Amino acid sequence: LLGAKSGDAFAQWGGDRGEDRDRDGKREREPLVLKTMGSLYAGGGVVESDSGIFHFDHLYAYYHIPVKARKLPLVMWHGCLSPAWETTPDGREGFQPIFVRRGWSVYVIDQPRQGRAGRGLDSFTVARASLAGEVSSWNTFRLGRWVPPEPRTFFPGVAFPQDSASQAHYFRYGNSTGGPPITRTPEDRMIPVNAVSALLDEIGPTVLVTHSNSGQYGWHTRIKNDKVRGIVAYEPAAFVYPADDAPPAVATEDAQVAGITEPQLVAPEEFDRLTKIPIQIVYGDNIDFDTPSPIFGVELWRVVVQRAQQFAEAVNRRGGDVEIVFLPRVGLSGNTHFPFFDLNNVKVADLMSDYLHEKGLDRRSRKGRHGRHADVASSSGGDGD
Amino acid sequence: LLGAKSGDAFAQWGGDRGEDRDRDGKREREPLVLKTMGSLYAGGGVVESDSGIFHFDHLYAYYHIPVKARKLPLVMWHGCLSPAWETTPDGREGFQPIFVRRGWSVYVIDQPRQGRAGRGLDSFTVARASLAGEVSSWNTFRLGRWVPPEPRTFFPGVAFPQDSASQAHYFRYGNSTGGPPITRTPEDRMIPVNAVSALLDEIGPTVLVTHSNSGQYGWHTRIKNDKVRGIVAYEPAAFVYPADDAPPAVATEDAQVAGITEPQLVAPEEFDRLTKIPIQIVYGDNIDFDTPSPIFGVELWRVVVQRAQQFAEAVNRRGGDVEIVFLPRVGLSGNTHFPFFDLNNVKVADLMSDYLHEKGLDRRSRKGRHGRHADVASSSGGDGD
Repeated sequence: LLGAKSGDAFAQWGGDRGEDRDRDGKREREPLVLKTMGSLYAGGGVVESDSGIFHFDHLYAYYHIPVKARKLPLVMWHGCLSPAWETTPDGREGFQPIFVRRGWSVYVIDQPRQGRAGRGLDSFTVARASLAGEVSSWNTFRLGRWVPPEPRTFFPGVAFPQDSASQAHYFRYGNSTGGPPITRTPEDRMIPVNAVSALLDEIGPTVLVTHSNSGQYGWHTRIKNDKVRGIVAYEPAAFVYPADDAPPAVATEDAQVAGITEPQLVAPEEFDRLTKIPIQIVYGDNIDFDTPSPIFGVELWRVVVQRAQQFAEAVNRRGGDVEIVFLPRVGLSGNTHFPFFDLNNVKVADLMSDYLHEKGLDRRSRKGRHGRHADVASSSGGDGD
Repeated sequence: LLGAKSGDAFAQWGGDRGEDRDRDGKREREPLVLKTMGSLYAGGGVVESDSGIFHFDHLYAYYHIPVKARKLPLVMWHGCLSPAWETTPDGREGFQPIFVRRGWSVYVIDQPRQGRAGRGLDSFTVARASLAGEVSSWNTFRLGRWVPPEPRTFFPGVAFPQDSASQAHYFRYGNSTGGPPITRTPEDRMIPVNAVSALLDEIGPTVLVTHSNSGQYGWHTRIKNDKVRGIVAYEPAAFVYPADDAPPAVATEDAQVAGITEPQLVAPEEFDRLTKIPIQIVYGDNIDFDTPSPIFGVELWRVVVQRAQQFAEAVNRRGGDVEIVFLPRVGLSGNTHFPFFDLNNVKVADLMSDYLHEKGLDRRSRKGRHGRHADVASSSGGDGD
């Protein structure tokens, strides 16, 4: 029993009893001890003929597999910024190294047509960059307010580093594009969902950690593939509902907000698959719950949180287990759209660790194998316990 | 002296005596022990006005910093496939984990406009995918021959896994695009060079490990920034020469080959900066040195190796230290354009370890600090020795 040997470098990690969670980053100065690390591709399509071959719409995943990993890996699924899982704007460790330290196998993905993932098959054009995108994001991502020509301001007490180097890092997040944009059609939505489902077919049962735009994909991935054993969703903006129990309208005068938050209706028996797993939804600070706003990035969250409540109620009415956490209500203030890279991200990680423990998702593996991907499966622990 | 403590998990790593190199992957089954890991951005430009802001043309780098890292990090600079440093097509560890295991801090970069790096500022269009690209690459990357409509074949004894899963992985390498293509103009060439130079200004003296298209950028990076302390170049295709000592023509009837391999003339005092560091250039197998070919990917290497010889002679005539290694001449056969992910990549890594040791580039740090990037610098070792 490797984990139980006294004097062993890994003894700190205990056994399968779930008592080895971190609190407040106490392990941040200790080494990370990995079994292996690397990257893989999953899913996507291929066209092939006598004249050649082309693969497209697969995803890319980087994995870090700790020694004596927990049974379920975490798949961290970006909104638009996969490196935001890796490192905070001020250069501290992000959720990827934090959860690897805590014994989780972590897969950080680039979804199809983005970053290191595959090119799309079809032609596409990217317009010359606009200076307005970051302005809108500043509001939407709740760093503060930015309404040109007034300069940008931070919210008082925002949990975001305000020095210029951190801002420069933040502004450089974002990926290249590998194909036509994935739109909000049901068809396009399945491109990333199918790729992640293919990943789970390789690596086995998993906890999905979604963010922002990938929140909606997380619901559909669970509907498609029961290897999703739990979901922690940071600031999802869109939700599914059963077609026989569509939620009432949420009034907004902002057409873009209405479009993004429009209920995605699925068959009742599909929806019911969401009742089989624990789901935690987390929102940060500086959300105005009551007052409609002419600013897209302000109005969005007023509508989103109502849609989230409708989703939670629909799942729970059918016997499911969804909880919504507003971070200020549990003592964490100032969080932006990116709680996992904010100044207090270790405390946010503690909340996630607590949740995963409470739901029995953080057990150590007896076998240490959690997938069929040859290299990872053969090297993902299994030395002891 | 942490490294000297008996029974210590890190004692295996010895001190600063260079006797702790790996041979033949004997450490591949031991844990990787990291101080920290994460990603950063470097270089690039920014446009800012009253109406907003946009950052572009920066690079992305993922770093793994081992406990008690060697003094100089390795910066692994892709040709077109940054994940090719990470994992082999058949799922074994690539140069990134191999060299982290060997005590090196490793930075794997996505150069500007590619993968996870920044978007370019200007509009660009990507055409619908052609099935012909992989056909040309199959020849150019020397997996074998592929002349449609005949099916593709592997070279006899090629050091490449031939099962379908490995081929599917290989065909899915490649990054998304983040801006207009970087062309062969001197101006465009400086986009990636400037970004890597900015990275070195952050992380300090470095050994560059280049591949294919980035080989040329490596020369220019050393000319620009003396923090380049050594270069290992896998299969570079283009070279610089002093303007006062241009090399003779190498005849070829292939205009594309001529364009790629065209001498890049630089001022003699710039060229002389390449004489100050050790440079190793490595080529794989299945190169026809003598016979002109109508196939681009065959003809290319015949010309390239002549250009490489001219480069080595020019540097060495001026007192430099360039060596060219043809892997079959040192006992490794079957290597493709990607020796670092071929079946024998651990032996290729051993050659690199030997070279870096021979040139005194693999010393352990006394301070364990090798850069100014706050997080990395403060956590890149320095606990002992």
